[in-house]
Amino acid sequence: MRALIFENSLQFKDNYPAPQIKHDDALIRVSYAGICNTDLEITKGYMGFEGVLGHEFVGIVEQCSNSEIVGKRVVGEINVACGKCFYCSNQMPRHCKKRSVLGILNRDGVFAEYTTLPLDNLHLIPDSVSDEEAIFIEPLAAAFEILEQVDISPEHSVCILGDGKLGILIAQVLSLTNCRLLLVGNHREKLSIMDEFGIKTMMKSDLTEGQFDIVVDCTGSPSGMKTALQVVRPRGKIILKTTVAKKSVVDLNAIVINEISLIGSRCGPFAPAIEAIASRNIDLIPLISREFKLEDGVEAFQYAARKDVLKVIIKIT
Amino acid sequence: MRALIFENSLQFKDNYPAPQIKHDDALIRVSYAGICNTDLEITKGYMGFEGVLGHEFVGIVEQCSNSEIVGKRVVGEINVACGKCFYCSNQMPRHCKKRSVLGILNRDGVFAEYTTLPLDNLHLIPDSVSDEEAIFIEPLAAAFEILEQVDISPEHSVCILGDGKLGILIAQVLSLTNCRLLLVGNHREKLSIMDEFGIKTMMKSDLTEGQFDIVVDCTGSPSGMKTALQVVRPRGKIILKTTVAKKSVVDLNAIVINEISLIGSRCGPFAPAIEAIASRNIDLIPLISREFKLEDGVEAFQYAARKDVLKVIIKIT
Repeated sequence: MRALIFENSLQFKDNYPAPQIKHDDALIRVSYAGICNTDLEITKGYMGFEGVLGHEFVGIVEQCSNSEIVGKRVVGEINVACGKCFYCSNQMPRHCKKRSVLGILNRDGVFAEYTTLPLDNLHLIPDSVSDEEAIFIEPLAAAFEILEQVDISPEHSVCILGDGKLGILIAQVLSLTNCRLLLVGNHREKLSIMDEFGIKTMMKSDLTEGQFDIVVDCTGSPSGMKTALQVVRPRGKIILKTTVAKKSVVDLNAIVINEISLIGSRCGPFAPAIEAIASRNIDLIPLISREFKLEDGVEAFQYAARKDVLKVIIKIT
Repeated sequence: MRALIFENSLQFKDNYPAPQIKHDDALIRVSYAGICNTDLEITKGYMGFEGVLGHEFVGIVEQCSNSEIVGKRVVGEINVACGKCFYCSNQMPRHCKKRSVLGILNRDGVFAEYTTLPLDNLHLIPDSVSDEEAIFIEPLAAAFEILEQVDISPEHSVCILGDGKLGILIAQVLSLTNCRLLLVGNHREKLSIMDEFGIKTMMKSDLTEGQFDIVVDCTGSPSGMKTALQVVRPRGKIILKTTVAKKSVVDLNAIVINEISLIGSRCGPFAPAIEAIASRNIDLIPLISREFKLEDGVEAFQYAARKDVLKVIIKIT
């Protein structure tokens, strides 16, 4: 099959072996997939992953043990857990130590004609959600994860650092809480997308000291933490979404002296993400910068790495 | 007056000017003081402080506006707040931006015959608490701060990294919760102090991977965070007590991927610390390594920096 793989370098192949399904798996024909910053970081060495890249997708189930699912349009949770360990038994399957992760850890991803996932990982997509919207469900779930971790209400001042794809998704999700919200970034054009949502924005260069109750770092840069520590108030919370290939130098003294809570945040719940799109509470279409064909995947990655670009989607079948 | 001051280097002076009190201040004759790791870090450049060092003390009030307090034995909270700002108005005076901190920030400390603090900062010491015990109230309060920040109960597994003074105090405080507790350090003799309390200990070299719900880093070393990230379970909590002059290289990816909460923890409430000593729930005497005179303060600091030494106390008047 056709596939975009990473093995020392990013390569398009038209003869990659199609995946085989095991008993609980579904074979999914991928319709569309999205390029995430994590994919870009993997091509710089993050996670040491090799194989088919990609984890944001929508597709059609072609084969599985449950005939009612065959032919349905689905998205899929990307962590494949053992189902038996402490974490799986305690509602934390995304932290299963034996997990594989779609296109990130020990499991081929979705920039290919076919992918596989266990049936339990799949979510059916309502007709009111388009394919182009559906590929945002995985990163949107990651945005909703913040609301699972931290109470955010109208009296809280919240600063989101980073006007990339994830920052804009998080801004839309957190605005549902009616908190006092500010999105800070380096790109006036990206920030202007927020105007239609009534979300306040600021250029990073205009951000001096702050006193925010909550700061979300989704800059994708090691410098994000430094800024976050400058603008969070004592006893405030920093939600950390950035994963980068490089380790960071952090002023841990500031965390101790100001008794900051730094909370790592990764994948999140799909159900509220699907519901939010279906009920038109989130507008994803302005985030799509350009569509590529799978054959042009290497070019698509180069384009996605540009600072002025938001979501790049790949039409696969 | 006699005083131990830091100005580029640590120096004993016998002609340092005695402090003057303002309207709400008390003039306190210092009886005993303790050397804290923060004092040692300040002599390496931490906080850029110059002046009389020291913040752990017990003394007698000699002069103040409230005659009932004169002659009483007191300890004192070390953060002197403005009383008017957002933090002071919201039960967070220890985070007042305009604060001075005894012997740490813009305020002479306690390695001197006299010190001053506002009356509101003082706590009377019951007769059942000795002078030698009273100087532990400030660091013991810092240990109790953990219980203000995190719920710890018998079902939690807790690992304390660092068998220094603070680690041993924290171990005693957390053992009051009946959690499953392990103190990890590099010094067999220090760890053996825990035997009488029935607290499990382990040499750091024997600590391989862990799955602790909560890890407390009080190693006083930049390497503590690395170990903490290795032994905390996904969605676990790391309480960070270490402040060091150097910045640290931290694997923030591990915090994100495992959704760790990193919680900075500094000064704490005095009342439960005084109560715990008075009710004999904490045994501090085994922590005292040696007593020095104020004149021998420079030697006392050299001794306190030794790896095999716990609390060094200074008899002042």
